[in-house]
Amino acid sequence: MRKPMLVGPALPNIPWEDRPRGSSDVVWRYSGNPIIPRDLLPTSNSIFNSAVVPYRDEYRGVFRCDDTRRAMALHAGRSEDGIRWRIDAERIRFQAAEGFEAAEWGYGYDPRATWIEDRYYVTWCNAFAGWPTIGVAYTHDFETYYQMENAFLPFNRNGVLFPRRLGGHYAMLSRPSDRGHTPFGEIYYSQSPDLVHWGKHRLVMRPALGWQSTKVGAGPIPIETDEGWLVFYHGVLTSCNGFVYSMGAALLDLERPWKVIHRSDPYLLHPKELYEQVGDVPNVAFPSAALTDPSSGRIAIYYGAADTVTCLCFCQAEEVLDFLRTHSL
Amino acid sequence: MRKPMLVGPALPNIPWEDRPRGSSDVVWRYSGNPIIPRDLLPTSNSIFNSAVVPYRDEYRGVFRCDDTRRAMALHAGRSEDGIRWRIDAERIRFQAAEGFEAAEWGYGYDPRATWIEDRYYVTWCNAFAGWPTIGVAYTHDFETYYQMENAFLPFNRNGVLFPRRLGGHYAMLSRPSDRGHTPFGEIYYSQSPDLVHWGKHRLVMRPALGWQSTKVGAGPIPIETDEGWLVFYHGVLTSCNGFVYSMGAALLDLERPWKVIHRSDPYLLHPKELYEQVGDVPNVAFPSAALTDPSSGRIAIYYGAADTVTCLCFCQAEEVLDFLRTHSL
Amino acid sequence: MRKPMLVGPALPNIPWEDRPRGSSDVVWRYSGNPIIPRDLLPTSNSIFNSAVVPYRDEYRGVFRCDDTRRAMALHAGRSEDGIRWRIDAERIRFQAAEGFEAAEWGYGYDPRATWIEDRYYVTWCNAFAGWPTIGVAYTHDFETYYQMENAFLPFNRNGVLFPRRLGGHYAMLSRPSDRGHTPFGEIYYSQSPDLVHWGKHRLVMRPALGWQSTKVGAGPIPIETDEGWLVFYHGVLTSCNGFVYSMGAALLDLERPWKVIHRSDPYLLHPKELYEQVGDVPNVAFPSAALTDPSSGRIAIYYGAADTVTCLCFCQAEEVLDFLRTHSL
Amino acid sequence: MRKPMLVGPALPNIPWEDRPRGSSDVVWRYSGNPIIPRDLLPTSNSIFNSAVVPYRDEYRGVFRCDDTRRAMALHAGRSEDGIRWRIDAERIRFQAAEGFEAAEWGYGYDPRATWIEDRYYVTWCNAFAGWPTIGVAYTHDFETYYQMENAFLPFNRNGVLFPRRLGGHYAMLSRPSDRGHTPFGEIYYSQSPDLVHWGKHRLVMRPALGWQSTKVGAGPIPIETDEGWLVFYHGVLTSCNGFVYSMGAALLDLERPWKVIHRSDPYLLHPKELYEQVGDVPNVAFPSAALTDPSSGRIAIYYGAADTVTCLCFCQAEEVLDFLRTHSL
Amino acid sequence: MRKPMLVGPALPNIPWEDRPRGSSDVVWRYSGNPIIPRDLLPTSNSIFNSAVVPYRDEYRGVFRCDDTRRAMALHAGRSEDGIRWRIDAERIRFQAAEGFEAAEWGYGYDPRATWIEDRYYVTWCNAFAGWPTIGVAYTHDFETYYQMENAFLPFNRNGVLFPRRLGGHYAMLSRPSDRGHTPFGEIYYSQSPDLVHWGKHRLVMRPALGWQSTKVGAGPIPIETDEGWLVFYHGVLTSCNGFVYSMGAALLDLERPWKVIHRSDPYLLHPKELYEQVGDVPNVAFPSAALTDPSSGRIAIYYGAADTVTCLCFCQAEEVLDFLRTHSL
Amino acid sequence: MRKPMLVGPALPNIPWEDRPRGSSDVVWRYSGNPIIPRDLLPTSNSIFNSAVVPYRDEYRGVFRCDDTRRAMALHAGRSEDGIRWRIDAERIRFQAAEGFEAAEWGYGYDPRATWIEDRYYVTWCNAFAGWPTIGVAYTHDFETYYQMENAFLPFNRNGVLFPRRLGGHYAMLSRPSDRGHTPFGEIYYSQSPDLVHWGKHRLVMRPALGWQSTKVGAGPIPIETDEGWLVFYHGVLTSCNGFVYSMGAALLDLERPWKVIHRSDPYLLHPKELYEQVGDVPNVAFPSAALTDPSSGRIAIYYGAADTVTCLCFCQAEEVLDFLRTHSL
Repeated sequence: MRKPMLVGPALPNIPWEDRPRGSSDVVWRYSGNPIIPRDLLPTSNSIFNSAVVPYRDEYRGVFRCDDTRRAMALHAGRSEDGIRWRIDAERIRFQAAEGFEAAEWGYGYDPRATWIEDRYYVTWCNAFAGWPTIGVAYTHDFETYYQMENAFLPFNRNGVLFPRRLGGHYAMLSRPSDRGHTPFGEIYYSQSPDLVHWGKHRLVMRPALGWQSTKVGAGPIPIETDEGWLVFYHGVLTSCNGFVYSMGAALLDLERPWKVIHRSDPYLLHPKELYEQVGDVPNVAFPSAALTDPSSGRIAIYYGAADTVTCLCFCQAEEVLDFLRTHSL
Repeated sequence: MRKPMLVGPALPNIPWEDRPRGSSDVVWRYSGNPIIPRDLLPTSNSIFNSAVVPYRDEYRGVFRCDDTRRAMALHAGRSEDGIRWRIDAERIRFQAAEGFEAAEWGYGYDPRATWIEDRYYVTWCNAFAGWPTIGVAYTHDFETYYQMENAFLPFNRNGVLFPRRLGGHYAMLSRPSDRGHTPFGEIYYSQSPDLVHWGKHRLVMRPALGWQSTKVGAGPIPIETDEGWLVFYHGVLTSCNGFVYSMGAALLDLERPWKVIHRSDPYLLHPKELYEQVGDVPNVAFPSAALTDPSSGRIAIYYGAADTVTCLCFCQAEEVLDFLRTHSL
Repeated sequence: MRKPMLVGPALPNIPWEDRPRGSSDVVWRYSGNPIIPRDLLPTSNSIFNSAVVPYRDEYRGVFRCDDTRRAMALHAGRSEDGIRWRIDAERIRFQAAEGFEAAEWGYGYDPRATWIEDRYYVTWCNAFAGWPTIGVAYTHDFETYYQMENAFLPFNRNGVLFPRRLGGHYAMLSRPSDRGHTPFGEIYYSQSPDLVHWGKHRLVMRPALGWQSTKVGAGPIPIETDEGWLVFYHGVLTSCNGFVYSMGAALLDLERPWKVIHRSDPYLLHPKELYEQVGDVPNVAFPSAALTDPSSGRIAIYYGAADTVTCLCFCQAEEVLDFLRTHSL
Repeated sequence: MRKPMLVGPALPNIPWEDRPRGSSDVVWRYSGNPIIPRDLLPTSNSIFNSAVVPYRDEYRGVFRCDDTRRAMALHAGRSEDGIRWRIDAERIRFQAAEGFEAAEWGYGYDPRATWIEDRYYVTWCNAFAGWPTIGVAYTHDFETYYQMENAFLPFNRNGVLFPRRLGGHYAMLSRPSDRGHTPFGEIYYSQSPDLVHWGKHRLVMRPALGWQSTKVGAGPIPIETDEGWLVFYHGVLTSCNGFVYSMGAALLDLERPWKVIHRSDPYLLHPKELYEQVGDVPNVAFPSAALTDPSSGRIAIYYGAADTVTCLCFCQAEEVLDFLRTHSL
Repeated sequence: MRKPMLVGPALPNIPWEDRPRGSSDVVWRYSGNPIIPRDLLPTSNSIFNSAVVPYRDEYRGVFRCDDTRRAMALHAGRSEDGIRWRIDAERIRFQAAEGFEAAEWGYGYDPRATWIEDRYYVTWCNAFAGWPTIGVAYTHDFETYYQMENAFLPFNRNGVLFPRRLGGHYAMLSRPSDRGHTPFGEIYYSQSPDLVHWGKHRLVMRPALGWQSTKVGAGPIPIETDEGWLVFYHGVLTSCNGFVYSMGAALLDLERPWKVIHRSDPYLLHPKELYEQVGDVPNVAFPSAALTDPSSGRIAIYYGAADTVTCLCFCQAEEVLDFLRTHSL
Repeated sequence: MRKPMLVGPALPNIPWEDRPRGSSDVVWRYSGNPIIPRDLLPTSNSIFNSAVVPYRDEYRGVFRCDDTRRAMALHAGRSEDGIRWRIDAERIRFQAAEGFEAAEWGYGYDPRATWIEDRYYVTWCNAFAGWPTIGVAYTHDFETYYQMENAFLPFNRNGVLFPRRLGGHYAMLSRPSDRGHTPFGEIYYSQSPDLVHWGKHRLVMRPALGWQSTKVGAGPIPIETDEGWLVFYHGVLTSCNGFVYSMGAALLDLERPWKVIHRSDPYLLHPKELYEQVGDVPNVAFPSAALTDPSSGRIAIYYGAADTVTCLCFCQAEEVLDFLRTHSL
């Protein structure tokens, strides 16, 4: 098994738990799941599908906290170990970035976050004229957030930035959708010179068979390796009793990420624990953030369970890459 | 916190359990939930969404018992403490009230009951030409039941009488619907001189955001306070995997109950326990009856869980009123 | 062929044209159809599905005039011969009847009108909280209109009054529906002591096979004969390219009109002329008013064609009754 | 209670567990359920809805194993006691029976198996042109399987052979369906001289009220008794949150099995255990195989739970027959 | 242009009209269309989608006559020239063929007819348990009709027999469907030793792009040529305002007709005349019968227009074959 | 009536016909409609929804020509008078603009064209990964066309460029949609520095009541006046028998075109002629191009009728502006 070279700074304090004895799963769950209960905040109905990044020698996160109105908002959180989190009781209030008009707040959910060059960028599913599209903002300190333009026209969800420019352009994956519980979804690539104007759209992945037959959408920020971008993504199957969300992975070409090198034919994570099978939306495992330690190859993946709580699972980069080579569509 | 004056006779033996230590919830669950298991009767598939009233120094109820054919019927029940119930194995057989034609039985579900003037009235979702509308009957003793005319044309559900006349007329809330698993629902007010002819219909509440965005429907009999009618109601959100039923409350104008004074923006009860999340219909908390002790301000609410079992939760009237004042839409 | 006795005043100047030579149709079209073009008013998009009554020795009507916004409103019209009509450019503005609250205007369509006792009553599909239900008003002179309460909760359409009290109560047929282009519809009977409170609802007719398999709804005011109430109604079939509206007839019991004596198995009128097959809604023949001359047995039926124009067709009461006897479901 | 005579060889080692004390259920669950976990195979996502037959003094089965791609395939299994199973890691590869063309493999699920005359036949839901229909194969040893022609045109599911010829013809029950999560389903009977050409189709059972109101489909191979064919079948109810699968039973005429003698009005098994209520498809109890010991009247029924795991339940033939006599539709 | 050899007896009196001057259309309409008006029978609503065969030196037909109930039935007709038709006022009453059980009549539509060996066979869409499937009958004289078993399980339509056995078996094309206005449809081939039991099903044609993107179904009896079976078929496109039915052609392998040699990429006939665009179902041209004169290569095709009337169009076999060679998918 | 100043070169040979005597319509039809029949090309099924621009002293157009496969393609056309057109039999073959990758052709429909600065730009609904989005190309001579990047992610339709830069950026209106016959549609504004990257999206118009209640989409290139951008657009109403497309107009702010100054409450053109009411899609009047003569205020609008043929209608700019002032939403 060749060891891929992961790009990025070492993260020795990455949250971690070894694979359970006897298990040969490529991805395994944290034994203390869920790490964030639905009611961590007194006003929260559920906390899930959220963004986490290293910040100095701690961690910062942007969390989807649906409150007891079931209104969806983004809250900042901090943690020393990436497992025990404190989350602000007040939602993030975006202010207009310089040169941008102030935007009215509607709702925000399913955030992602990454460092690019000189600041942290946050993207999320943002209300635009009442419809879902991709909001974009940045922060230097996870205290003050500056909102830019929405990246796309409605209807869009799961906008995920690459952690660096490609060919001089910012790059984003997204999943064009419709107005409701969209029964379709493909991942597209778009580029931008300025994070405002987007173009050169390319199809990356369509639904395929089985667990990913209804829709697919990007999860955590792509992880750069010397073999390509490692992308964890969600796939959805429609059973007679609704959607089932599972997690897979793909390896995208470094320079032309719309070229798929490998893509997992089996899933890597599937709703099998009660906290994934039972909740506000049964049968959901939805990856939305990952921490990576290039020196050890460890990856910790944050995922929402049952649209209710936040969980952790783990894997080794070289094992995932190997799995992709041997179990690709 | 001002103490509202509740109208009605004292009910010192109201079923009750104090709020759990450490909890600040306005509504809290009974620790012995569910109080009625799905198979209390040998032939029952589920027992839920039912009516309870004080009767002498005991309690009487009209229960929705779906049998193992999954046929829906109404059964009488009795209890000394409002918690431990005996339910008749045979369903209620309505006889025609004097001056009324005998009606053919189709099905009956989601009953409500209240005392008005000289007798107990029961309303329920009744089969009329095979379609759901509001059945009306009365009883003096919960032994013999006299059926009157259906209140409305099909399609209607959740017909809930006020416990006294308003402006000389009987008054009812109801939720016009359609023929199936109706994806919409608003609460209307109607009046009647004789419980047979109904008119002067007024819109009371529409769906709003979040947990009550798909439909809303009245729950227990309105509770009279000196500030208005306190109404507990269900709201429904449509997730990608189906309906989720939560409970909220509203305060309606005493004389013109179609005027909403306050209405809860957050929910007060939401399916979070396994017995609410798992069952014949996952994720349902459906309030259908309430007992009130004006002297202590205690309210005990009966609700169906997962369309499978019967549960209890509690609150203090003054806290609910205060919550409505501070968390109104 | 027994001659039925029609109840009512003679109407010697009833609009009329003899059956075309060679035809044996029970119902035949006026050769000058459509009698009212879609743009009779400068601002009208279409004029159809309207009410007509004798008034002194002339005729008065309440017309559905959709304007070029395609907003639906009611306009008064007058005619000396029932064929050539002048229609008011301005829509009817209802004022609150004494003792009633003023209602906000939303929309109004598909009106019916009849004389009862001392005045003319108009019913129509009226916006109530934005939804369709049955509006009720009266006029003495077709100049001033007094609006009463809506008869029913939403959702309802095709409310048609009987031209006299039955058993001391006002009586109405209606067709409970849903919020959109309702794919079902049955005719129900309701009674009222005061035209405000309605009850004692009874099912009259369900859809049947063929042309009336999707829904049925009452058309003109029932015509009293000594054999029963003669009712022309519309039936709808759903083809792969949409709804097709045809006309049939039924004979209802005089005292208990929810008892159907005869009901036409074949249709009596079907969209076969270009003005019925082509227009804003292709393939619609929708009867909404009838004039009757008891002395001759002549009946003139007004019907909307293609939801665009107003047409006339004719028949002989005794022939329709005979047809019903021999072609009943 | 008359003892019916069951036809077939004694099966003294039938898997069995006595009815729990205090229970009066006609059908009771095995206390060790589920007998096969979802991940018995390292690559399996779920194992359920499968076929079991006695084989020499052991048992053989054909199992539906969905793998972690959620691809559906058939795997052979063996067991000494019918409870503890070993399942082949590799799916069954059908070879063309002599005189038949080789068929391309698409997917296969919900198998049934029976001995007829000189070999074991397996039927299952087989991909034909990408659509579901009934595949037919035979084996002598559960090692090599010979595939014949598909029995029917698409779209069909739940094809279940009778264990012997009737009137000289092979006989099969099946449930014509459509392309997706079919919301309807009736059981039909068809015959064949050669297991290739099928005809003389007859309707056997339609959906009825309650638990079997959406669709019904045959489960295990019909069990021959001297009173008729005992058929366990699944019925489906559509709640607002999806399908619910329960089990009932029917007795069919021995010579003309499309004549239903008795059919259970109540269900016999309903999703009430967590392993039936929670899983890839919540609320499913789906019977697919039965073992019968004529000497004792014992019947062991294999059923899939929540489309995830394999379970066992038990009954006594004479009690089921008696139940059918007293609780028939 | 190679002249294909058509198989069959000469038909010198085939109905015919030369291609209009200036036209280069491969298929052209009869100038006297429609040849059968919707009301040829006093009780008919429409006459269309029907079967025609040569009979002695005249023509016989089986016609779909929907009556003014819009009940669908089959009527026999006769014509000397294939253009002017007399149709029986009474529908065909099938009697049970010898050895067959009498079938209850539900409805029948879209018949096809052909001579095989010693008699004429008629197939049609027949009510079976209330659902559509393929009825089969034969007649020697178009006076008495003997009904056999339905060929397939529901749901099926457009069953079209080949005019001779293939490999010793009867052969049929059909289009499995669902219960309503089916939005999909593929043509399958099935064989039978006895016209009772059917098997060895094979997919022949799926929908393709454009005019045939929603469904395809066989039209007239296949025409044998030395190059293959010439099949005219209908294709359906779904516009935002419903289905549009056009006609194309295909050439199938003589021995293995599920092998498609050529298939028309453009349509050959499309609703462009008012009688095809306007009627009970707008925009339908539906071929159902063809007459062929092998000596001249002339083909006359009967097609239903707008589900209302019967029309004729013409072509030359060699031109159609040439068109297929040059415009194949 | 104030005369607005139109911006642009004089167009004295604009196609024109005076308003019919007696008419007071703001927009009137050309008496020679349709100007292009459906079969102008031998292989065309329909020609409609197309682009027209002045070119030297003639006119050039890009036409949507659906061929007899009902494949949608773009064809160039030329005309001396704007009424009689010659259209190339071959579709436009785009070549990659310099610096762009060649795009695969899927389909193209509903084109628009305008001159900006130094060349003609064409936009259209273009297949991207099989889904509709906005294609962009330019030409200098309507002979060679250079394709750039698609403007947006799927799913989008009706992309319409402004005829000059605004604030230094190219500007486009578009209507985000979904994958099928989209039942919703709003007009959005987007800007681009380079016609490749697009951003700063703004909502311009939502559906409103009546004729424009289902969706709205931009029609011809916006016409610059000194009062604002004059935009003709289509609005869609959903009747029980499908979509109805009408035409209205709006005036947008010159500098911030997402600010609507006026918007027509009534429609200006509605399907009332047989060629608009009958065809491949009944009841469609779809404006797609306009010619303007600033010196006379004349505007000629090209519109597709019934998705089948191309038509012309006329108006005076000052009358339209005046109408908007007096009939604005």
